[in-house]
Amino acid sequence: MPSIKDVADLAGVGVGTVSRVINNHPNVKPETREKVNAAIKQLNYVPNEVARNFKMQKSKMVALLLPSIWHPFFSELAYYIEDGLDKEGFKLMLCNSGGRPDKELYYLDMLNQNKVAGIIGITYNDVEDNVSTDIPIISIDRHFGKKITCVTSDNYTGGRIALKELVKAGAKKAAYLGIHSSAYSEVRLRKTGFIDEAGAQGIEYIIYEEHDETFSDDKYFGDFFKIKEHQDVDGVFANTDILAAKYIAAAKQHGLRIPEDVKVIGYDGIQDNKLFRPILSTIRQPVEEMARMSVRLLLRKIEGKTLEQDIYRLPVMYREGETTSCSVFLSL
Amino acid sequence: MPSIKDVADLAGVGVGTVSRVINNHPNVKPETREKVNAAIKQLNYVPNEVARNFKMQKSKMVALLLPSIWHPFFSELAYYIEDGLDKEGFKLMLCNSGGRPDKELYYLDMLNQNKVAGIIGITYNDVEDNVSTDIPIISIDRHFGKKITCVTSDNYTGGRIALKELVKAGAKKAAYLGIHSSAYSEVRLRKTGFIDEAGAQGIEYIIYEEHDETFSDDKYFGDFFKIKEHQDVDGVFANTDILAAKYIAAAKQHGLRIPEDVKVIGYDGIQDNKLFRPILSTIRQPVEEMARMSVRLLLRKIEGKTLEQDIYRLPVMYREGETTSCSVFLSL
Repeated sequence: MPSIKDVADLAGVGVGTVSRVINNHPNVKPETREKVNAAIKQLNYVPNEVARNFKMQKSKMVALLLPSIWHPFFSELAYYIEDGLDKEGFKLMLCNSGGRPDKELYYLDMLNQNKVAGIIGITYNDVEDNVSTDIPIISIDRHFGKKITCVTSDNYTGGRIALKELVKAGAKKAAYLGIHSSAYSEVRLRKTGFIDEAGAQGIEYIIYEEHDETFSDDKYFGDFFKIKEHQDVDGVFANTDILAAKYIAAAKQHGLRIPEDVKVIGYDGIQDNKLFRPILSTIRQPVEEMARMSVRLLLRKIEGKTLEQDIYRLPVMYREGETTSCSVFLSL
Repeated sequence: MPSIKDVADLAGVGVGTVSRVINNHPNVKPETREKVNAAIKQLNYVPNEVARNFKMQKSKMVALLLPSIWHPFFSELAYYIEDGLDKEGFKLMLCNSGGRPDKELYYLDMLNQNKVAGIIGITYNDVEDNVSTDIPIISIDRHFGKKITCVTSDNYTGGRIALKELVKAGAKKAAYLGIHSSAYSEVRLRKTGFIDEAGAQGIEYIIYEEHDETFSDDKYFGDFFKIKEHQDVDGVFANTDILAAKYIAAAKQHGLRIPEDVKVIGYDGIQDNKLFRPILSTIRQPVEEMARMSVRLLLRKIEGKTLEQDIYRLPVMYREGETTSCSVFLSL
């Protein structure tokens, strides 16, 4: 009976390459794949099932990189990703990568060594240069280039909707409140959408941002309320729900009533029950759909298929809470 | 140069057993370990480092079984467990096991096959009968017997403190509100502590519980407020924060003011900021300590050590919010 070594010798490649072809690993050139398959056919080679299953098993693991599983948005995302992977027979390896690029590169190395089948996550490094085309990585919210597919919510439309809803609720002067990081992220489009819609509606607006590395609640809001042209702001779009809630707490300390004096809209939709107040008006990310889409696209990459798009943007929805209109939750 | 097969032959055991001895796997009888080590010494056998590292790597994985990572208590726990494992060079495999015992047994099987080094989790099955002593499993909140070590908060004292604080806040008739499952869990001691302290204080009390399989918010609270002897309850200890928040929402609909008419205390301490209200008075679980203790104990089991205790109970703390006393948060 021919061995894997016989196949490798006939095809003029290493045993590892034959193994990758057998296991459908994406990292094989088409010519090589053809040569190996021809050798397998010629020798009538039957792969050792035990060894094969063993190899397969190793690669039935997907790494999920998140800044922190503790954050409600990420834990909801992780919940649905695990569920999606489980249904396909894959396991999830969890990594709180937050602030540590070395952890991320470690997983990339595991991917190169075939110990994880793929990676889903919010990556901080521009790993684009270190990976080959079609390597199984799905990035959420961060778009690096053609090789790493990105799944995100439609941040731009979200920004437009937020401004539109603030105006609808009666705001005459709107502020965009953001925290941004140096890595390029699709999240920035929330601001672009907000600005474009303000232009379209002809409404006065303010952009107030700080870098995440220097961010502190006290300084951020202390400075915000000091600036004279911020005094008559009567609509706020904060680029996350947590930032919206922090703004509301700070605004109350400055004697402002929400929503009477200022209408507030957040982004994410982290409140999955109505038990804790305020119930934020927010742009709801389609978390479950983003998770399932990420799993689906990753598995297609693992199978060696090429995806049609570089970025997959999923539609968002406005969810009205009690921070834009006084009447909504009076019945509660 | 002698091979691992030579060692196995000399010791009269299989190659797998030699490998387990080399990798310090706990599942080896002391006599066998001695025989293998003697053979290694006699032959001057040096393990193949590549193969050894490969073996080791496979077992550098710990499975975390949780009902749902989406729940804030579990995501905080997972955050610290991942951090603790990472510091020791271990990886975390995440499994939302909720309601699916088959998932749990699958991981137990992986443990038997040496594909995961150990399991930390909230297990539903009484797996005690299927595992040998000292198998690396740490159970959180559920105690099965001597083999599976349990890490939990001091639920009994938590129950006593809750009753004591309700009385201190002015309650004359206290109710314990719980949801219980059929599996035995240390969580039940919250009720025992509550009852014992009510006895010690000589205060009237009520126990109101429902099975988690038949639980629905509407029925649970609808029934609660219907019963005549519940009308004059002025103190409530709910066995989770979420249940406390649900009680408060239901009580408000019945025209009750919190804390003026009813003082409310929860259990867990899931609110890690003061952005959303009400800020619950609660018995705070030492989540970080529970996570780190679980990791520490698991690693000792993986090293083959025997632990001194079957149950490790970590102290809880009362954290006052705004649901027991009117004055505390007036400044906010």
